[in-house]
Amino acid sequence: MIQSDIIIIGTGPCGLFAVFEAGLLKMRCHLIDSLAQPGGQCSEIYPKKPIFDIPGFPKVLAGELIDNLMKQIQPFKPGFTMGEKVETIRKNRNGGFHVITNRGTQHKAKVIVIAAGLGCFEPRKPIIENINFFEDKGIDYIIKNPNKYKKKKVVISGGGDSALDWALHLGKNIASKVTLVHRRDSFRGHLDSIKQINEMSKSGKMDLITNAEVVELIGDNHLNKIKIKTDQNIISKELDYWIPLFGLTPKLGPITNWGLNLDRNNILVNTTDYRTNVEGIYAIGDINTYPGKLRLILSGFHEAALMAHSAFKHVFPNEKKSFKHTTVLGEIKGF
Amino acid sequence: MIQSDIIIIGTGPCGLFAVFEAGLLKMRCHLIDSLAQPGGQCSEIYPKKPIFDIPGFPKVLAGELIDNLMKQIQPFKPGFTMGEKVETIRKNRNGGFHVITNRGTQHKAKVIVIAAGLGCFEPRKPIIENINFFEDKGIDYIIKNPNKYKKKKVVISGGGDSALDWALHLGKNIASKVTLVHRRDSFRGHLDSIKQINEMSKSGKMDLITNAEVVELIGDNHLNKIKIKTDQNIISKELDYWIPLFGLTPKLGPITNWGLNLDRNNILVNTTDYRTNVEGIYAIGDINTYPGKLRLILSGFHEAALMAHSAFKHVFPNEKKSFKHTTVLGEIKGF
Repeated sequence: MIQSDIIIIGTGPCGLFAVFEAGLLKMRCHLIDSLAQPGGQCSEIYPKKPIFDIPGFPKVLAGELIDNLMKQIQPFKPGFTMGEKVETIRKNRNGGFHVITNRGTQHKAKVIVIAAGLGCFEPRKPIIENINFFEDKGIDYIIKNPNKYKKKKVVISGGGDSALDWALHLGKNIASKVTLVHRRDSFRGHLDSIKQINEMSKSGKMDLITNAEVVELIGDNHLNKIKIKTDQNIISKELDYWIPLFGLTPKLGPITNWGLNLDRNNILVNTTDYRTNVEGIYAIGDINTYPGKLRLILSGFHEAALMAHSAFKHVFPNEKKSFKHTTVLGEIKGF
Repeated sequence: MIQSDIIIIGTGPCGLFAVFEAGLLKMRCHLIDSLAQPGGQCSEIYPKKPIFDIPGFPKVLAGELIDNLMKQIQPFKPGFTMGEKVETIRKNRNGGFHVITNRGTQHKAKVIVIAAGLGCFEPRKPIIENINFFEDKGIDYIIKNPNKYKKKKVVISGGGDSALDWALHLGKNIASKVTLVHRRDSFRGHLDSIKQINEMSKSGKMDLITNAEVVELIGDNHLNKIKIKTDQNIISKELDYWIPLFGLTPKLGPITNWGLNLDRNNILVNTTDYRTNVEGIYAIGDINTYPGKLRLILSGFHEAALMAHSAFKHVFPNEKKSFKHTTVLGEIKGF
């Protein structure tokens, strides 16, 4: 049983910053996330993409933002349960909550904050026989560590920014050979990326196969050959990794079972403290909705602050909250 | 007549960031502030103090935050009218606004955003006969340009951070002689500043006169002598400038005349778009209030974003707003 004052579901920027705002009020947090590392979409989907609308940062890479937030919350020593999904939330008789994940770890807290972004991300998988067999044996839907592909023969499928960016990144510095397979002949990505892809293709540094798709997977314990169907023919290609990047689909998953008022895929909250209809459960960041809502990281930061000041009365029902600006406090005293 | 889409009253962090959020939606902003330089309290009162609760900055000096924001909004080329107070706001027949400052400059815009923090800051003035006569003739309550005091004999009064910091700054590099006069014998500032002041006093680089106050001002067209009363006696002192730094008091000032619903010293707004009771006038940052309000810079950033998305319909009544994340836009296209 892991005990904390506040359980935060989701470790995107808003979930992380909630630790800071809670910490200023002496509340301890434990975070749970289905992904392997903190940061949510920022780490998983676009760590190397610049964000331009974080106040005070003319430009910041999503991954850098997460690193900064991790440093900012460090004094408050948050706990992390990573790679697990919260499945069950039960209200205890004393008003607190009992939370159980899909792997059975158990958590207790006075307050729950759902900061789950768009929900759990699941990769869109192409429909090919035996694809499940080769998952983690030559097929990756998400690139977690680019160095895994060092000096390897890699085939990437897809026509969006993710496919283009990774094809360029792996093709320029890392893989021994990159092939990009796309089912159309035009791409949906940045013009500059498309230009670079075309240049690398012309100069022979990348194989570009358009109007084509992977139709067959071959290998014993590890994928080592694929067949690619084009307009004209079928190409056999030896490879070490196939990375189909057809996007990720968010799924609300078990959140729909927790008795919360929803509006489509979002949790309805008020704007006084971003609480849900269940006393003691708050929702902040992209997962919530209210009149005027914009899905901006900076809005989630604000929501985290107001949530924390409201959560205080659940965590310390008999204490008076004192609010001091950090410029006045002079330094951050952690736990 | 200065024409813009949005007039922003106040150039603190929230006012500045509003330029960015407006700019993303192609709206041009003009800012008006009673102080000499942008940044509001952050620049005027505590530029060298660290802030710890700006998301993504484990620690940032208030002045640095302002520099970063100025850089972030630069692509949207905001206009600035500094050192003037907005006195009159009139609604035009076409629904726009006509704004006149205390110096008579005239402005037109479709939308007004009040981001005036705690209001206009007015210096606390010591009560001495003929002090008004010497204002701008040897007496300054605010240091706008330190180089004004180059090789001058300067007396600073006060015992807080502002007095200590300026005494050190002018004493070390700029003035020919600095005297610090304080009515008590202990200071309210940073320990490190106090230590430095004592060192400079001991080594004769600064005159430190405690348990003392300035009681008489002497000069013809310009202050050139003061009398300082101590426990024991009265000291006559020749000087070029006397700078009493007894703090700034915020005053709402003319804001109370604009027909806005107020709650004490704050403007009442809703939380959908932070609009006031007057159509087309918004209030963001520390000046506004609503249920759950916290006076945090990060809340003002959120309020600026929602304001901008609402203001769009006043500025471009016939256009459809398209909302794209900056990670997707790929870069910031300015004006």
